[in-house]
Amino acid sequence: MSTASAATQFLNAGGTRFAYRRSGTPAGTPLVFLQHFMGNLDNFDPAITAALATGREVILFDNVGVGQSTGDAPDSVDGIATGAATFIGALGLGAVDILGHSMGGEVAQLLALDHPALVRRLVLVGTGPRGGDAIARQAPGVGPLFGKRDELGQNMWLPIMFAPSERSQAAGRAFVARITARTEDRDTPVSAATIAAHRAAARAWASAPADDFSYLSRIPQPALVVNGSDDIVIPTINSYHLYQHLPDAELMLLPDSGHGAHFQYVNRFVRRVTDFLDVQPGEET
Amino acid sequence: MSTASAATQFLNAGGTRFAYRRSGTPAGTPLVFLQHFMGNLDNFDPAITAALATGREVILFDNVGVGQSTGDAPDSVDGIATGAATFIGALGLGAVDILGHSMGGEVAQLLALDHPALVRRLVLVGTGPRGGDAIARQAPGVGPLFGKRDELGQNMWLPIMFAPSERSQAAGRAFVARITARTEDRDTPVSAATIAAHRAAARAWASAPADDFSYLSRIPQPALVVNGSDDIVIPTINSYHLYQHLPDAELMLLPDSGHGAHFQYVNRFVRRVTDFLDVQPGEET
Repeated sequence: MSTASAATQFLNAGGTRFAYRRSGTPAGTPLVFLQHFMGNLDNFDPAITAALATGREVILFDNVGVGQSTGDAPDSVDGIATGAATFIGALGLGAVDILGHSMGGEVAQLLALDHPALVRRLVLVGTGPRGGDAIARQAPGVGPLFGKRDELGQNMWLPIMFAPSERSQAAGRAFVARITARTEDRDTPVSAATIAAHRAAARAWASAPADDFSYLSRIPQPALVVNGSDDIVIPTINSYHLYQHLPDAELMLLPDSGHGAHFQYVNRFVRRVTDFLDVQPGEET
Repeated sequence: MSTASAATQFLNAGGTRFAYRRSGTPAGTPLVFLQHFMGNLDNFDPAITAALATGREVILFDNVGVGQSTGDAPDSVDGIATGAATFIGALGLGAVDILGHSMGGEVAQLLALDHPALVRRLVLVGTGPRGGDAIARQAPGVGPLFGKRDELGQNMWLPIMFAPSERSQAAGRAFVARITARTEDRDTPVSAATIAAHRAAARAWASAPADDFSYLSRIPQPALVVNGSDDIVIPTINSYHLYQHLPDAELMLLPDSGHGAHFQYVNRFVRRVTDFLDVQPGEET
């Protein structure tokens, strides 16, 4: 069963009923995705999840208070990471690989830091360090974009995730078509209460004291850091900072693209992530 | 015949007798390497050239005044690029792919800018833009490293090309073993006059007016920019600047490594370069 059509399942852990979808080939280390602000199960790009699921199990879930998962969404990245640890621990799969996008990439950092036994390798996309560079000083037009919800999400996601060029915007329209193609068993939109809590979490992360990236030195897991050239949500230079302060990180930055560069360069991204996740000892050099 | 054992050949063009080595599979676009400061034909890593030569022709050459090539080495990057254009034009292969390292990456930029018909795609390793960030303010210990020539080059290349960690230094020792393994038909060391001319070229490039990276916007060729995390020769941030100012560039920065990161991560580098050079239209996204 492909990821795009995987049925939504439920798992009870730590007082939360977690909604999740699981698909792919049970081989190697499973890959768990951590979602961005305002995203639910339907916002994971099925082109990416399906391609990566050919070589491993791919697990998508709604964190506490998101979509069909119960509970009150925490208002700190730390709290959201605790929810992710609860879900991943309850899967009983041991250490998994993590692909976190945007706020999901912030969650991924704390998950790896505070729950090292649960995390083998990290893919951090369109994200940045706590107290990162200019995250708190977003251009004035960016915040309001997250209020532009329309039926397809096109008015939000095209300017948020893609660069202004026609090439990038065309990729954005193809992306929106992919995430809206599923008609059965769609997830529940993220509630206003969860949006408010997660917005507070993102703000606290962004406005933490700057230049204290030392916590990153305590995340030894190999990491692949990915972004576009013109990320307006978490400015691209933050991916460089993550790379410079994580002990074992590789940086992949893509041309003429934004916060959702991986949605634009699906093939390139999937090939590099596959190479990174499937690397054998000795091939690492 | 593998690149490591390819015989040195000669080609006369523009008044210079160019020494070069050619190997690999005549398929697709040939790949021409541009060498770093003080390097000759023997300083190209045979592990990299042999791996890339399995899918294309690989051409290594001594530019004007280097090794066994005749002539007076120019004292500007522009002049060195003219020499490269003369050689590549004389090959009569049409547009080629270019892999330039360090000063060779500077040469590659001007070659692509001023001779666009000769260049299809660019791989720019351990290099930076003209007037780049802190290239002219190298740490005081770096310059003298280039005077530490010993028989194997170990005293020079280990601190120049690799990071201080034991892991990186071990990779450096393996690299030095590779470039010194060839015993027959070795190239002539770079002369003192050529070193002086190229040093002047590198200094002029580094001390050009800063923050004038606009020339990069006129290099439309797709580029893959690669470096290590701790380049002490052309500080790593310059790779980020190249990426940000070239219209169609991807950035790949590798962990715990220096100016010669590709010598440390041969397999990872070769896989990514192969993917970049062999990309088919439609797979680019």
